[in-house]
Amino acid sequence: MKKYVYMFTEGDARMRNLLGGKGANLAEMTRLGLPVPRGFTITTEACNEYYAAGAELTAEMIEQIFAAMARMETSTGKLFGDLENPLLVSVRSGARASMPGMMDTILNLGLNEDVVEVLAEKTGNPRFAYDSFRRFIMMFSDVVMEIDKSHFEVKMDEMKAKLGAESDSDLDAAAMQELADIYLQVYEEIQGEPFPSDPKDQLLLSIAAVFRSWNNNRAIYYRRMHNLPSSWGTAVNVQEMVYGNMGDNSGTGVAFSRNPATGENVLYGEYLINAQGEDVVAGVRTPLPLDKLKEQMPEIYDEFKRLSDELERHYGDMQDLEFTIEDGKLFILQTRSGKRTATAALQVAVDMVAEGIITKREALTRIDPNSLDSLLHPTFKQEALDAADPIANGLPASPGVAAGQIAFTAEEAFEAHKDGKKVVLVRTETSPEDIQGMNVSEGILTSRGGMTSHAAVVARGMGKCCVTGCSKAQIDELAKTMTIDGKIFSSGDWISLDGTTGSVYDGKIDTQPAELSKNFETIMTWSDEVRQLGVRTNSDTPADAGKAKELGAEGIGLCRTEHMFFGSDRIFAFRQMIVARTEEARRAALAKILPIQQEDFEGLFRSMDGLPVTIRLLDPPLHEFLPVSDNEIQELASDLGMEVAALKAIVTELREINPMLGHRGCRLAISYPEIAEMQTEAILGAALKVKNEGVNVQPEIMVPLVAELKEFQFVKKTIDETAQRVFEQAGDKIEYLVGTMIEIPRACLTADKIAKEADFFSFGTNDLTQMAYGLSRDDAGKILDAYYKEGIFEFDPTAHVDREGVGMLMEIATRKGRSAKPEVHLGICGEHGGDPVSVEFCHLLGFDYVSCSPYRVPIARLAAAQAEMKYPNADKKILYKYDYSEEHPSSV
Amino acid sequence: MKKYVYMFTEGDARMRNLLGGKGANLAEMTRLGLPVPRGFTITTEACNEYYAAGAELTAEMIEQIFAAMARMETSTGKLFGDLENPLLVSVRSGARASMPGMMDTILNLGLNEDVVEVLAEKTGNPRFAYDSFRRFIMMFSDVVMEIDKSHFEVKMDEMKAKLGAESDSDLDAAAMQELADIYLQVYEEIQGEPFPSDPKDQLLLSIAAVFRSWNNNRAIYYRRMHNLPSSWGTAVNVQEMVYGNMGDNSGTGVAFSRNPATGENVLYGEYLINAQGEDVVAGVRTPLPLDKLKEQMPEIYDEFKRLSDELERHYGDMQDLEFTIEDGKLFILQTRSGKRTATAALQVAVDMVAEGIITKREALTRIDPNSLDSLLHPTFKQEALDAADPIANGLPASPGVAAGQIAFTAEEAFEAHKDGKKVVLVRTETSPEDIQGMNVSEGILTSRGGMTSHAAVVARGMGKCCVTGCSKAQIDELAKTMTIDGKIFSSGDWISLDGTTGSVYDGKIDTQPAELSKNFETIMTWSDEVRQLGVRTNSDTPADAGKAKELGAEGIGLCRTEHMFFGSDRIFAFRQMIVARTEEARRAALAKILPIQQEDFEGLFRSMDGLPVTIRLLDPPLHEFLPVSDNEIQELASDLGMEVAALKAIVTELREINPMLGHRGCRLAISYPEIAEMQTEAILGAALKVKNEGVNVQPEIMVPLVAELKEFQFVKKTIDETAQRVFEQAGDKIEYLVGTMIEIPRACLTADKIAKEADFFSFGTNDLTQMAYGLSRDDAGKILDAYYKEGIFEFDPTAHVDREGVGMLMEIATRKGRSAKPEVHLGICGEHGGDPVSVEFCHLLGFDYVSCSPYRVPIARLAAAQAEMKYPNADKKILYKYDYSEEHPSSV
Repeated sequence: MKKYVYMFTEGDARMRNLLGGKGANLAEMTRLGLPVPRGFTITTEACNEYYAAGAELTAEMIEQIFAAMARMETSTGKLFGDLENPLLVSVRSGARASMPGMMDTILNLGLNEDVVEVLAEKTGNPRFAYDSFRRFIMMFSDVVMEIDKSHFEVKMDEMKAKLGAESDSDLDAAAMQELADIYLQVYEEIQGEPFPSDPKDQLLLSIAAVFRSWNNNRAIYYRRMHNLPSSWGTAVNVQEMVYGNMGDNSGTGVAFSRNPATGENVLYGEYLINAQGEDVVAGVRTPLPLDKLKEQMPEIYDEFKRLSDELERHYGDMQDLEFTIEDGKLFILQTRSGKRTATAALQVAVDMVAEGIITKREALTRIDPNSLDSLLHPTFKQEALDAADPIANGLPASPGVAAGQIAFTAEEAFEAHKDGKKVVLVRTETSPEDIQGMNVSEGILTSRGGMTSHAAVVARGMGKCCVTGCSKAQIDELAKTMTIDGKIFSSGDWISLDGTTGSVYDGKIDTQPAELSKNFETIMTWSDEVRQLGVRTNSDTPADAGKAKELGAEGIGLCRTEHMFFGSDRIFAFRQMIVARTEEARRAALAKILPIQQEDFEGLFRSMDGLPVTIRLLDPPLHEFLPVSDNEIQELASDLGMEVAALKAIVTELREINPMLGHRGCRLAISYPEIAEMQTEAILGAALKVKNEGVNVQPEIMVPLVAELKEFQFVKKTIDETAQRVFEQAGDKIEYLVGTMIEIPRACLTADKIAKEADFFSFGTNDLTQMAYGLSRDDAGKILDAYYKEGIFEFDPTAHVDREGVGMLMEIATRKGRSAKPEVHLGICGEHGGDPVSVEFCHLLGFDYVSCSPYRVPIARLAAAQAEMKYPNADKKILYKYDYSEEHPSSV
Repeated sequence: MKKYVYMFTEGDARMRNLLGGKGANLAEMTRLGLPVPRGFTITTEACNEYYAAGAELTAEMIEQIFAAMARMETSTGKLFGDLENPLLVSVRSGARASMPGMMDTILNLGLNEDVVEVLAEKTGNPRFAYDSFRRFIMMFSDVVMEIDKSHFEVKMDEMKAKLGAESDSDLDAAAMQELADIYLQVYEEIQGEPFPSDPKDQLLLSIAAVFRSWNNNRAIYYRRMHNLPSSWGTAVNVQEMVYGNMGDNSGTGVAFSRNPATGENVLYGEYLINAQGEDVVAGVRTPLPLDKLKEQMPEIYDEFKRLSDELERHYGDMQDLEFTIEDGKLFILQTRSGKRTATAALQVAVDMVAEGIITKREALTRIDPNSLDSLLHPTFKQEALDAADPIANGLPASPGVAAGQIAFTAEEAFEAHKDGKKVVLVRTETSPEDIQGMNVSEGILTSRGGMTSHAAVVARGMGKCCVTGCSKAQIDELAKTMTIDGKIFSSGDWISLDGTTGSVYDGKIDTQPAELSKNFETIMTWSDEVRQLGVRTNSDTPADAGKAKELGAEGIGLCRTEHMFFGSDRIFAFRQMIVARTEEARRAALAKILPIQQEDFEGLFRSMDGLPVTIRLLDPPLHEFLPVSDNEIQELASDLGMEVAALKAIVTELREINPMLGHRGCRLAISYPEIAEMQTEAILGAALKVKNEGVNVQPEIMVPLVAELKEFQFVKKTIDETAQRVFEQAGDKIEYLVGTMIEIPRACLTADKIAKEADFFSFGTNDLTQMAYGLSRDDAGKILDAYYKEGIFEFDPTAHVDREGVGMLMEIATRKGRSAKPEVHLGICGEHGGDPVSVEFCHLLGFDYVSCSPYRVPIARLAAAQAEMKYPNADKKILYKYDYSEEHPSSV
């Protein structure tokens, strides 16, 4: 028979997956001899089998639960439901990862109308006994039967009104007893049957309810936010009750072994005398700082401090503890790694290494890479923020904060910026034409679009605060107004944004700039010593690239040349190129762009002296560069000296039904090789020029959207022939690589052929994810709502690589590519390159590097180090021989 | 050293891949002792290596070519370039598959100014000698140097004018000699160097030119049309010249061993006395029927008839022969399987079985499945067609012909049809709203869209003639005019279409209906005895389904329910459903549609009594059901009793950037489970009803666009719960299957999980191809033009399954699906299901069935039989254990 139940004396900290975090730590503390109330844990496996059995506890589980209860009865000397020495227990959830407040807890279980009298008598404290009973009835009703708490709270209010009491604590034992009776009636009225008085029934119903709470909406949402799989399940801990509310010799509190805000090495916490744990949380009375306990109960304090230090040293991490003092005796109810600010995390990690508690490598595992983000961006001044309430919420698309005056167009932003104003650009959604306006703004707010919309991607690249998809903001771009809850905002009005939370505030909130600490540098240095993966950046400008290099980027993994075409000095020539009807006219327009492009690349090469720079050829469909509205078309036609109708015809002709699957990427370079020629000439011309200035240039030219080897061959031929010409003209030459994006499923499946010709693969997981799922990120909004609600998606595959599907395509491409050419460089330049769990996956695949937006470079560095510690030498474990039998229909 | 050259005495018919069809057959005939002029073949491998070496003959090839020439000199007793007994040769292409007229040929090679004199003297026929030399100069210039023939033809015309000659044959020896001199001058003027007089130079240059002709535009186009890979390469045959133009005892001709138009078993062909092969083709003189030869040269005729019968019996197929009689001696220059009409193909196959020449199984391999199409559709009366010239050409989207009066809208078509007119529907492109109009039309013509556009797919389903993408036709739908080459067509004007060729004709051409022959039934019966694959049909109406059953369909593999919603009796209720803002309003609208849907399904089930019927839940995005133009929106708003602005807002909200990757398929059933409920109720309600009529119903419900197991689980739960409810209400039940389309790459990669829950997989290769390539068929037009031109695509992956990429996804899905559930049904319902090479691939994968439009059912039956003969028991050879190591990052 499978073991579903473990006594605390049977487990240890390593059994977290089976016993949950809380259960494993309770067992560990029991093993270490710490004062922990007795109890047992029902495993996470039991939770999964509970669901598999159609949401039923199986006979085997029930048998093992009661066997464990019997062992508890023996060791405590108390009996469950006994009228002499009754055993009372708590029933709590405890998943593998801490999910605070997400699931349910039931206290004081074992009470009924008879037992409560015994408790009153034995403790000599009838008020305590009936208060406990009343609380138990309410909790049980809420958690197990889903009876809304308000049904009970209204009775409490009536009771207080009747007795003229101000707070709960003004009610005496008789009132509590009467309330308990009323609560029992309420229960019976709603449920149509009496409250279960048999403690065994109470226990089984409560355990099932905790299992059930694993799939409540809160828990599902939390898991999605934290990328936790639903398959983990929760454990259930059944533990003897101890009471902090038995008099002035009792109390309860919570503590951190160090300061969770700063990391300072001092015991930090608060407690209440004569109270139960929930009272501390509920804030009915104001808790006292722990220093006070040192005065009130010095021996208890010293013992607690000693245990806290012991646990910290034992676990090698700052601890978050719950304790109860029952009649002068200290019990530890829970210990776990403490949540902390990023600043504190760095401080604790560096200090603990200095104190000899953990090694440098261990220190790296104590920091959540994502938390570093908050250190790299400006924040609101706390006192200013405390006074403000958000008026709307959108998606936290790019971290940092901003306060500025509203501009509704890129031009407006540009003008306001010239006048020395701080600007927030507000649009329904942004397009590449808005880039300059975005660049001069403090932050960007859009009413549409998701985490990978244009605004989000570009803002992250710029390290600029951005909130997207704020649907509550009704933006009228023509009228230049934004309406939120009836309030109308106009150009020049102040608003503030928090791109880390997605909050939007009315008015101006003072901000403070980011400052990188010595600890930050220390942790980054340690990360670099460990990691196997290189870290590059996605940058399109020398400024972004310079910032990324400061943050540790080891090259550019993706320069999107299309952003360069929107500069006011070149968009006109580029549009001339698009509307040209002959190759000759196209070449004439391209000739005007060439010197400007070359200058762009010179700047990038200089800023990346000594590091590789990967430049992608033009990718987006050409219609993205043309205006849409009639007014703009008329204006452009007049500028171009064209008939409006002729220009409209071109705009219409270029329009596509599914532009993401349309005329873009290398398909442009095949239809119009002269574009690729111009770009190659600009890249290699720039490379030769800065080489003569003494810059070490390593250009890598990247062909986007390849689905078929011959596409790549065609464009590579154009590049190589152009290079030959450039080199001959210059009488000089330079090494360069030619590689491809791997962003189309078919490219993954034929990667062996492509690898033979390509110097490198850069996985474009944004597009690959959309094509593998058949789901456009632009259109996914309303679909995803239903998907999260129904638990169909556990996480957003554009945020974390979907290992099962997209990841398998990446793996097939990796295996096939490396089997054909072991030295092919492998990298990723999709948004996933800055996501820690995706970085881990790239490490597992043995990639050479990840590339991400500048401000995510430190995150990727730490995540890469953590991946190496979790999976050492992972790349050597992948078999680069793709198993492919001779009997293979695909090869017939 | 690799062997690049084979003497005819070294090869045989089995070496077709290496020697090409012509070379292998020449060798085979030599082996059989037939009178074949001596020679050798340079292999197809040499062709590939020629290209690999940068379009150069390698030293090894050249060495082997001259060694073979030396052997020819020994066996013929003639010497190349000799002035006593010169050897003259022809150089001809010969690929693995016959590509008539696509590549180049050079005759009379070995002549120069000296050798021609020897030839004149030896034959005593100087006119013949100089005519041969002149022809050689022109052919060589054209084929090897790409000098346009017109440069020479103009000289010929001048000569004829000068001498007052009417035709070439009026020119005497002196004139021919003078012409040869002039031709040599023309050559030297254009090339800037003298004509190569060394026969060895002539030979190598000519061989290289034939290799080069493998990649001329004609050949590339032909290969694409016939799905032949460029990697095959062509062989080159070098053969001793024999001359049919040496006097009245000489001649040349072509013949078929049976009548290629009817299949009748009589020797059929024509010949010319005193002529060379090209004269027969050029039509300068009118050839005589072969019967005449029986009178003129009875012994030669008898010998030829004997050899023809021998070859037919030897190859087991009707032969297409070329022969030459040189001075009373018969030579066979070529034999190959003869091209024939579909009618003849059936007749020959059935006759040869009766004659004991081939088995039934062999007979099946003698028929091109695609050719059957022409037997199933009406054709133009030949005499009417002869008088007509096409005015434009589009894509041959759906076979058959049509003559009718133009209608520019579905309504117009409907009204004209009611008035008893024959209608051709003319539109820029069709949408689902046009279905009723298409149904009453004789044929459909669109100016946009490809072979898998809406018009093409629906027309094929209806078995209705359709020409798409006819860009020459400028259609103004508002003005209701079509302009072709300046001529304006209006409503009611007659046009005629040929959907098999893509031609469009002005006016009315008389048509004749299709008739199925006894031979057709015989071949189908034999096919059914052999094939392992089932053949179902894609049909949405009882009429289509009935037709398909007549043509041998064994069930419905795809019923697209969305087509049903466009009926005038339900589109209004369906639109009410779409614009509903509450579930309640949606359900009210759906309740109106339910009885109509149920009736649809009853009809389908009755027509498919005893056979499975697969019904797909609603698939397209909802915006496809709403109008687009302002007028129509206003009208609909008034019908719906809505504000125009409110309806416009809904239309705008539903609009998608990439609708193909948007809110459609199972995503609709997840957002609006009530739609899936209504459809399930209609399907199973219908099934129960007709079951009580005694019909054997086998409903299969298909969930579209699944990318993730949980999507399928969600919809399956809706279906099963609804089924439960329907069965309870009816007090009766029925077996049904629930399966899924596999049309998204991720579904292929996770097919093992999906198979555990799904009863069947139906591969939707239309969408799968688009997603695997990242290429939308709606937008691919201008991309594909460049791709074919540059040789990047060899064939259209929407016409034939791309085995390398899409096929690998299908294979992964098949292996994983079968490994998880060996009994899972596998089928295909994409357009590829009716394409023979794709049917073969499905056979290789061990599918249970293919499903195709009704008129392709016979093609699929024969193709499936051919696949089984080519790859017997293929399904048993696939290892259904997908090799998947434990060290698999995708599973971490």
